[in-house]
Amino acid sequence: MRMRKKKNLEPRLAQCADYLLPEQDCWSTLALLMAGRPLYLEIGCGKGRFVTTLAAAHPECFYLAVEREKNVLLLAMERARAAGLSNLRFLSCDAARLVDLLPQSSVSRIYLNFSDPWPPKRQAKRRLTHRNFLAIYEQLLPVGGEVHFKTDNRGLFEFSLGEISATRDFLLKNITLDLHASGLDNVMTEYEERFSSQGLPIYRLEAEKLAVSGTPTTEFTNPSL
Amino acid sequence: MRMRKKKNLEPRLAQCADYLLPEQDCWSTLALLMAGRPLYLEIGCGKGRFVTTLAAAHPECFYLAVEREKNVLLLAMERARAAGLSNLRFLSCDAARLVDLLPQSSVSRIYLNFSDPWPPKRQAKRRLTHRNFLAIYEQLLPVGGEVHFKTDNRGLFEFSLGEISATRDFLLKNITLDLHASGLDNVMTEYEERFSSQGLPIYRLEAEKLAVSGTPTTEFTNPSL
Repeated sequence: MRMRKKKNLEPRLAQCADYLLPEQDCWSTLALLMAGRPLYLEIGCGKGRFVTTLAAAHPECFYLAVEREKNVLLLAMERARAAGLSNLRFLSCDAARLVDLLPQSSVSRIYLNFSDPWPPKRQAKRRLTHRNFLAIYEQLLPVGGEVHFKTDNRGLFEFSLGEISATRDFLLKNITLDLHASGLDNVMTEYEERFSSQGLPIYRLEAEKLAVSGTPTTEFTNPSL
Repeated sequence: MRMRKKKNLEPRLAQCADYLLPEQDCWSTLALLMAGRPLYLEIGCGKGRFVTTLAAAHPECFYLAVEREKNVLLLAMERARAAGLSNLRFLSCDAARLVDLLPQSSVSRIYLNFSDPWPPKRQAKRRLTHRNFLAIYEQLLPVGGEVHFKTDNRGLFEFSLGEISATRDFLLKNITLDLHASGLDNVMTEYEERFSSQGLPIYRLEAEKLAVSGTPTTEFTNPSL
C-alpha cells in the first residue's frame, strides 16, 4: 500500500518504537514477548485494522504484522498503541527476509489479505502466493499450520490456486468464491469494506501444510494473469 | 438432466443402435473403433452438443459420451447420427461403472460439464468431483491425463477444488473463475449458453494426474455446500 509521505514521520515512529521489532535479534525479542503463545503472522498489514482487531479479540495468541511501507506501518502501529495491545508487534521488511528472521515451524498461521496482484506476468515472482514465497511459508509453518488468503482480485486468486497446488506442500480447504455470501466468520480490512460495498465478490482460501511434501513442479500453471 | 419421457423412445433408440455401446465387451468393441486414436470421455453428456462439436472438430480423437438418462441420451445419439460421426459412441450407465468397463490408463481426458451439484451435504458422494469419483478417474487416466471440469455452480466448484486438492493425485491448472471473460477457447454446452447469457460467471479447472500419488486425506474440506 502506497500513500503520501506522512508529516513528522520520524518523530511519530519514535513514539511507537516499542511496537517495532528490530531485525537484529528479532526472534529472541519475540520469543520473550510471546511467552509460550502461538504466533500468528500477517504479511502486508497495511493500516492494521485486521491484525489489531484479531489481537484485541485473542489475547491468548501473539501477532506479528509485517509491512514494508513505513508510511502505512506508522498508522498500524499508532492504532495498536492507541488500543494498548500487548500481544502484537510489527516488522518493517520484505516477506522474503522472514525466513532469515524467524525459525522453522515458528508460525502457526499466516494471513495474506488483499496482497498486491502484480498483474503483469513478468511480475509474477512478486506476488505473495508465488511458489517462491510458498516455499518460505512452508519453512515457517509446522505441519498442520495454515495460510489464510483473501483477495478481491480474480486473476491473483486463480494464480494462487494453481501455485498452491503445484507446490504439493499444502492442502486447499475452505475455499469460497464469495466470502461475504458464505456466512463464514470474517474480520474485514479497510480495503475489503470499501470494495465489498460495491457488491463484488471476495475470494478466500486456506492452505494447510501437509506432512509429506511432494515434488514441486517447475512451470507456471496459469499464464492468463 | 431430467426431461419428460420421449414418445416412441424405444423405436427411436433402435434407430441409433449403432451409436450405443453394450456394457458387455464394451472395451473390445471400443478398442476396434478407436483404431489407435486417443480416447476422450465425457461423463454426463446431456443432449450431446458439446461432445458432438468436439468429435466433428477432431477426427484424430475418439469420443465416448456417458449419460444415464435414456431420454436425454436419445437426443445426443440422434445428433451424432445426423452428423454422421464415426469417432463417437455412447454408453448409458453410472459413472461408477466405468472403472469396470474400461481398462486402467485407457482415457486421455475426462470432461465434466455442468454436473449435477447435489446441493445437500448428505448427497456429496453423488457429486462427480467427490473424491470417490476422482479415485475412479485416477484409475482411468494415465499420468499426465486430465480432467476438464466446468460449472456455473459456485458451491460445487468450491467443493471440487477442495476434493481435488485432498486426493493429492492431481495438479490443478488453468483455473478460471470467469471462463467467458478469460478469452480461453471454449465449446459451449446447451445449458452453458442459456446460463451465460444471463451474465453469470462459469468456473473452470483442469486437473492433471500426477506421477507419484500422495496420501488421500479422509475428511471433507468444504462443508459449506
